[in-house]
Amino acid sequence: MDRRTFLESTVVLAAAAAVPGLALAKDQTAVLPPPSMTGGKPLYEALAQRRTERAFAPEALSAQTLSNVLWAAFGINRPSDGRRTAPSAKNWQEIDIYAATADGLYLYEPKEHRLRLILDKDIRALAGKQDFVATAPLNLIYVVDTSRSDTSGSADSTLLSWADTGFIGQNVYLACAAEGLATVIRANIDKPALAAAMKLTDKQFITLSQTVGKPKA
Amino acid sequence: MDRRTFLESTVVLAAAAAVPGLALAKDQTAVLPPPSMTGGKPLYEALAQRRTERAFAPEALSAQTLSNVLWAAFGINRPSDGRRTAPSAKNWQEIDIYAATADGLYLYEPKEHRLRLILDKDIRALAGKQDFVATAPLNLIYVVDTSRSDTSGSADSTLLSWADTGFIGQNVYLACAAEGLATVIRANIDKPALAAAMKLTDKQFITLSQTVGKPKA
Repeated sequence: MDRRTFLESTVVLAAAAAVPGLALAKDQTAVLPPPSMTGGKPLYEALAQRRTERAFAPEALSAQTLSNVLWAAFGINRPSDGRRTAPSAKNWQEIDIYAATADGLYLYEPKEHRLRLILDKDIRALAGKQDFVATAPLNLIYVVDTSRSDTSGSADSTLLSWADTGFIGQNVYLACAAEGLATVIRANIDKPALAAAMKLTDKQFITLSQTVGKPKA
Repeated sequence: MDRRTFLESTVVLAAAAAVPGLALAKDQTAVLPPPSMTGGKPLYEALAQRRTERAFAPEALSAQTLSNVLWAAFGINRPSDGRRTAPSAKNWQEIDIYAATADGLYLYEPKEHRLRLILDKDIRALAGKQDFVATAPLNLIYVVDTSRSDTSGSADSTLLSWADTGFIGQNVYLACAAEGLATVIRANIDKPALAAAMKLTDKQFITLSQTVGKPKA
């Protein structure tokens, strides 16, 4: 086994530990199991149970749960034209969802419904200023890619991207209500520090982050 | 019958025609029937069917449908502390939902789950620049009341209010998917003209508007 193959195997093992049931391929991507698209709690019941919770158990989420939450958030619900579960201004689809877990930072790729390992490092503590952020199993970080929205960076396009973040965040709230998970969406972030750790470009900016996990017993 | 009573009766009849099954009391409010809080399409099915539609039948929505959509949007789901179906930054609850219908402009009052007649006039044509806005039965107008959020009017609080609008708008998208209704959320609005028609104060501003109705056959 040459060094490169050995390193890749190490990454596979690490990633498998981070999200049980998820195997990272050599191209650093892991295909998620197909999401639930038909079941789930009735909508009005999920709305009745929608709430913010800030106490999380540290245990990892299963690959299936991760799949359901990410697809609900901003997955493709019309594969023929790539349309999504949440709207976006002028169909920019400019929001990317990054997932910060104990074992690394991943980018959600909706077309393939997979995660791409971006950083083999635990940066959860940078995803927000509250204590629970560092230990909860999953922090979704919503990032605007202005190269897909309004490259002029106008004030209006920024406002629209914040609304577009809200659409997605509410989907996550409802998926968590349906899955019995705790969640909170947060703005209290050291954004320059987080953006630097994520190696974002100057065409990207962070809007909000959302912590997800099992509720603390 | 004195003139005042006669006028009030006229308003009752007009409002009853606007939203079948909804009776306007003398204080200009109409209590909505209790919303669905337990049923509805399964969440993941609603997410799979979430889409933007821009062709609406002109017929009015029933009081029950209106009740379900408004409660889903930003109703109270925890009466003990007044918490809502959508989050808001720092629990400001700063977004008000106005409903522009053929017979008038109403304000949704979540605590009493009722509508208050604000304007006995059809201002739908001002709720957006697209043709369908003037004839669709319902245009929700999302209005930030900065006296409940950050009175400094900082750039950050404005961004948060746009995200807060997104949370609510996505609830409406999913309720429409569950109810078989068409909907589109829109930014293309002559806001000064609409704000003037709505008689908004200088502490209020419009973010987005969302058209709701039965899909055009």
